[in-house]
Amino acid sequence: MRQAGRSLPEYRAIRGVGTILDAIAQPELAAEITLQPVRRYGVDAAILYSDIVVPVAAIGFGVDVKPGVGPVISEPFRSRADLARLRPLEPELDTPYVLETVRILTGELAIPLIGFAGAPFTVASYLVEGSPSRTYQHTKALMHEDPALWFELLDRLADLAVASLRSQVAAGAQAVQLFDSWAGALDPHDYEHFVMPASRKVFEGIADLGVPRIHFGVNTGELLGLMADAGADVVGVDWRVPLDAGRERVGPSIAVQGNLDPAICLASWDVVEQAALRVLDRNGGRPGHIFNLGHGVLPETDPTILERLVELVHGYQGPARS
Amino acid sequence: MRQAGRSLPEYRAIRGVGTILDAIAQPELAAEITLQPVRRYGVDAAILYSDIVVPVAAIGFGVDVKPGVGPVISEPFRSRADLARLRPLEPELDTPYVLETVRILTGELAIPLIGFAGAPFTVASYLVEGSPSRTYQHTKALMHEDPALWFELLDRLADLAVASLRSQVAAGAQAVQLFDSWAGALDPHDYEHFVMPASRKVFEGIADLGVPRIHFGVNTGELLGLMADAGADVVGVDWRVPLDAGRERVGPSIAVQGNLDPAICLASWDVVEQAALRVLDRNGGRPGHIFNLGHGVLPETDPTILERLVELVHGYQGPARS
Repeated sequence: MRQAGRSLPEYRAIRGVGTILDAIAQPELAAEITLQPVRRYGVDAAILYSDIVVPVAAIGFGVDVKPGVGPVISEPFRSRADLARLRPLEPELDTPYVLETVRILTGELAIPLIGFAGAPFTVASYLVEGSPSRTYQHTKALMHEDPALWFELLDRLADLAVASLRSQVAAGAQAVQLFDSWAGALDPHDYEHFVMPASRKVFEGIADLGVPRIHFGVNTGELLGLMADAGADVVGVDWRVPLDAGRERVGPSIAVQGNLDPAICLASWDVVEQAALRVLDRNGGRPGHIFNLGHGVLPETDPTILERLVELVHGYQGPARS
Repeated sequence: MRQAGRSLPEYRAIRGVGTILDAIAQPELAAEITLQPVRRYGVDAAILYSDIVVPVAAIGFGVDVKPGVGPVISEPFRSRADLARLRPLEPELDTPYVLETVRILTGELAIPLIGFAGAPFTVASYLVEGSPSRTYQHTKALMHEDPALWFELLDRLADLAVASLRSQVAAGAQAVQLFDSWAGALDPHDYEHFVMPASRKVFEGIADLGVPRIHFGVNTGELLGLMADAGADVVGVDWRVPLDAGRERVGPSIAVQGNLDPAICLASWDVVEQAALRVLDRNGGRPGHIFNLGHGVLPETDPTILERLVELVHGYQGPARS
């Protein structure tokens, strides 16, 4: 479960007052935040506490993550001259704290650690818009008006993701997740033409490492097949798409991750249980399903609900006969 | 094209400094704002300048529409006691200005006027959340925790929509559009169980009027069939869903409306032309397609682009032979 920590009292007790980038830069703290929900919930894998803008911030693009707002860019990416601000990532020099966090975690965890990177489109959308957007209009304008520059931008962001993920795996991560959180703003034509090549470059750039590669987004109902074809082993399915329909779209050789609506987890247990069973039953007990929420845990979620949810999933024996 | 006015200099010249509810309450102004894009673009139908919270504001629920934010509710709907704040709408008494605007417009327009109402779910989401939301978590919590109260709330909102739409048609509107803008936040199970019955009540409540009924939403790829089954004659398809896939989902007897990405309209004409032709070609020249944007016009849109877009659609002769 992504962002599972932020609903925990023990998280609020240690998180401090800095930004998320400040917390990520402190390996002991970042490792502890990663571990808290693992201890609490007994999940089967841990996801590194990180943020998709970590590499671009680390190479000095001028990124801050404002609480309650999200990533804010002091000088957004708007022209060819801005490419010079995107030098290659040298993980051991630029993000040593990420690697130290991974090393601490893989020393302590008895379950796999999932490494973390932002996908080229979603990182680009932050760099181009300058702040979180509902329309992605500057991003789409750049993509259509200056495709050559767009592809160069995405190529550099793909290189950053590859370098970051390779370094995380070298430090001990046993799987990776590529977050293309906002790719669902695109239609399939634009996704396939303008985004998929760079995401494919990321997946191909880590293929030799032999770790499972998870591809995540929301509002991606029409993109699931393409997101699988980009080179993922697992594709996230948000709650809008019934899980069996999602499995059909990604094809028989790709696993799915999802897809309980995080907002449901604010309801009482009976409601959560029924909704979780609907998800599980739609998969029908087949292999190739990683149960998860369709998006991050909401901060208001009651931790005891998530405890029971994990118990339910672990005890699930397949669809009940009716 | 919805919200086509707000990109026009002639709109900004007359709009004034009040809220949208202030402008809607002035029939001469509201009629002029409705007419401006019709004059400029030569479209084939006009959509009434309105807002989905007009009826609930008119019966005194305590709604303001803050510029740049959206509807804000002074005391959100949270318990059974709040039902008393939702009395039936008496359109001639509560919203005489809406009917006067419709009468002015039907006297001046040579094309059909489309009446306007918010769908029960989307209006409820504003009343329950209290302000625009990304998660709809309070709304979903109410729906799941207290279904009896939820259904009573939606039933009253359905009655408001029926009363408002009937009065608009009686005043001269020749079609209606029901805006369920945020229904796409729901999975198909919750939509079918908790939302569709109230939307069906709205469509059934105006069926005897014999006017075309358009059902609009975004992020509704998985809901299109249900939105058709709710009783619509036309279903809006946002740009994420290829139009031919959208037609399949609504079935052969239902028309579709859409589905150019509004953000594309900020690009240069060549880009817009290619994207619009992709939409038109996917329909393949069949009847039963109302060309439109997949969502409202963005304020930054260049009006000359929309002029050329309307010309392109009017001159379209079917897919080019390749």
